[in-house]
Amino acid sequence: MRVILHTKQIIFQQSFSTLWKRTLTTDSEAKRERLIILGSGWGSYRVLRDIDKKKYDVVVVTPRNHFLFTPLLASTTVGTLEFRSIIEPVRNTIFRQTDHFHLSYATALDMEKKILTCESALRPGLMYDLNYDKLVIGIGALSNTFNVPGVYEHAFFLKEVADARKIRNRILTNIELSTQPKIDAEEGKRLLHFVIVGGGPTGVEFGAELYDFVKEDVARLYKQKHLDVNVTLIESNQILSSFDERLRKYAEKKIKQRDRFKLIQSAVTEVTEKGVRLKDGEFLPCGMVVWSTGVAPRPFIRKLDVPKNKQGQILTDNHLHVIGDTTGSVFALGDCADIEKLPLPCTAQVAEREGKYLAKKLNGKTDNEFKYINMGMMTYIGRYQALTEVTKVKMQGVPSWLLWRSAYLTRLGSWRLRMQVPLDWTKTLLYGRDTSRVE
Amino acid sequence: MRVILHTKQIIFQQSFSTLWKRTLTTDSEAKRERLIILGSGWGSYRVLRDIDKKKYDVVVVTPRNHFLFTPLLASTTVGTLEFRSIIEPVRNTIFRQTDHFHLSYATALDMEKKILTCESALRPGLMYDLNYDKLVIGIGALSNTFNVPGVYEHAFFLKEVADARKIRNRILTNIELSTQPKIDAEEGKRLLHFVIVGGGPTGVEFGAELYDFVKEDVARLYKQKHLDVNVTLIESNQILSSFDERLRKYAEKKIKQRDRFKLIQSAVTEVTEKGVRLKDGEFLPCGMVVWSTGVAPRPFIRKLDVPKNKQGQILTDNHLHVIGDTTGSVFALGDCADIEKLPLPCTAQVAEREGKYLAKKLNGKTDNEFKYINMGMMTYIGRYQALTEVTKVKMQGVPSWLLWRSAYLTRLGSWRLRMQVPLDWTKTLLYGRDTSRVE
Repeated sequence: MRVILHTKQIIFQQSFSTLWKRTLTTDSEAKRERLIILGSGWGSYRVLRDIDKKKYDVVVVTPRNHFLFTPLLASTTVGTLEFRSIIEPVRNTIFRQTDHFHLSYATALDMEKKILTCESALRPGLMYDLNYDKLVIGIGALSNTFNVPGVYEHAFFLKEVADARKIRNRILTNIELSTQPKIDAEEGKRLLHFVIVGGGPTGVEFGAELYDFVKEDVARLYKQKHLDVNVTLIESNQILSSFDERLRKYAEKKIKQRDRFKLIQSAVTEVTEKGVRLKDGEFLPCGMVVWSTGVAPRPFIRKLDVPKNKQGQILTDNHLHVIGDTTGSVFALGDCADIEKLPLPCTAQVAEREGKYLAKKLNGKTDNEFKYINMGMMTYIGRYQALTEVTKVKMQGVPSWLLWRSAYLTRLGSWRLRMQVPLDWTKTLLYGRDTSRVE
Repeated sequence: MRVILHTKQIIFQQSFSTLWKRTLTTDSEAKRERLIILGSGWGSYRVLRDIDKKKYDVVVVTPRNHFLFTPLLASTTVGTLEFRSIIEPVRNTIFRQTDHFHLSYATALDMEKKILTCESALRPGLMYDLNYDKLVIGIGALSNTFNVPGVYEHAFFLKEVADARKIRNRILTNIELSTQPKIDAEEGKRLLHFVIVGGGPTGVEFGAELYDFVKEDVARLYKQKHLDVNVTLIESNQILSSFDERLRKYAEKKIKQRDRFKLIQSAVTEVTEKGVRLKDGEFLPCGMVVWSTGVAPRPFIRKLDVPKNKQGQILTDNHLHVIGDTTGSVFALGDCADIEKLPLPCTAQVAEREGKYLAKKLNGKTDNEFKYINMGMMTYIGRYQALTEVTKVKMQGVPSWLLWRSAYLTRLGSWRLRMQVPLDWTKTLLYGRDTSRVE
């Protein structure tokens, strides 16, 4: 539903879209419905993989040309894994369909006319329209800053490979800088204090990887320097709140035992270049803030005029159909959406299950409602220890860590990745992490 | 030799340096001479590896914290190899010597007082001095733009991993952009025209890798799109001029046989956002220009008040001792220097041999002059073909390509790289190159 649009522009865009559609459509394709998939994350990518390409003329619109295996993203911030070991180009999946992949943002949607407006992610200002018969919205969400001042300017997020790269650079920069002449003890301590805001799996796993890196590599390469490294995890409620209480307590105990790893139960009210302020007024000087709390809607979702929940997520019915769409052709899944009568957490697992269901439904193989069976949760807490929670099985420690690694291996989306990830792990084990600082 | 310096500043800097030196120097170190190595390329890195650490207190000053295996850099621009598969952190070599590695630029040198002024590469403006007993200058060179307007603004260099990453991004961006709506045929053709200026090994190898990428991956993933890709190599003299004539002719013939790969013998007089102008006035529209011609001195070398050659390289005697240094303690090697009586080309091989010699000399194991024996040259020309020129042996084609690959493998500096590079090659062979676009 576009907000401002002149009549002339509508006519032009419509005729352009028709023309565009015509040029793309060959005879054999004409019988197929056009399905546009927005996004390339867990939900959308699963729809893309499972959808019947004989039944649908599939078009993907996404500003990111690869699928990212998010559960292993934290491992890339310190080099346990390499960035390209956990991503898979989308074009490898839609093989030989040039005109059916758009490296673009969706910017507006006319649900009645079934027109999607896009803007090129490669040339800002290059706008164009696409027609669709069916639309799947799965563009994920942003981190929620809760309007805390300074987050955008000074904190790092951990959502994409580019974020992980920036974090890796900052860690290496701060460690090197702390060794330089004219950096006094106080400034050195500040540079080596890393703050994580948010005690969900991402925050905890990043903290775990950072801890391993300091223990295993900084200690080896920087002599006594690792003794100055401090990590603080700030969470306003409980860490890993979605886990079973016993496992949560285990994680808390393990983390608290660690030297120079601190848990603070508080909220951050300001982020500056030099540190964070807590709600009791205390200022913690630090050299890096990683912000990983909650979800906030992306601009396209914010602009959509459909019913949403408190977090700004699009509401769908139990068939993942968008409530407020009268045409029956718009679906939404993953972090950008919420099922009205079955609210679920924002996890990769939920998004992927939704994608699997939606592809089946669109392929005409099911008319059932979406049902969610939790297949279990896992998280890495550092020092070769993890937490695993599968129905009735709750594991911790080293066996859980082994399970964590093998489970992820089987979940990786291609043989290329399944070959590279264990090699990265082997390299890290044999030679330590790569501390090259590459801009 | 500093140019502008107030007396007060000198006194401050001297006392600071003394203090600094004192804090760093333990009793056992006091007996050792302090050797500062500038740079982390082929020459400097070889000195660092070979130098006797019992004899010298070694300090490395470089803005790049890793050694880069430059002959394979062109392979990373299209993903045949990954960026981190060809670099090795310097700290892995100087193991546990925290205070002896400076991620900094050298900015000035007082040869009489033996004081080197540095500026932090991590915090611009953080300046400090270091004392030395011996100094090795091996900071390489910049590409020579010959003052052609627009080169800095619009062309890409191919010297560092960051350059290769930018080129890889631009290639993927242009291919994707050329498929987008509202990009007309002419603009599409421009985006897919890649121009290389300079027919040395770097330019030729980059062209070869680009050609392989288009033939093997673009053709697979982008249907007919690869037919629009054109590559033009512009060289004002002969390509691969340092090679034997028979091999050069072979390379020229092979390259000329290729569809949509063009050799132009001309010079570039201007680079704009949309293309390059040749000296006859013709304008070639293109989507990317890679500039790899000649060498130009880095700012530190430019400021040094010592005898230099026409290219602005520091002149040394046959012991690699800098002519114009009266103290006998300053040495230079690699691309930033030239031996007055034995001018040699700017290659990795020359720099590394010089490094090997200089370490031996500084270790007190030789008093001979530096002698250069060419161990042969190799270059990859695409489609599994290479050129090899070893004394009396001149090879070309597929056998040469196999030799090219195996020779580089044995030359890689660590087991980590020797393990990763063949794996990258295998992955490329099995699954194609990774076309994920990562910012």
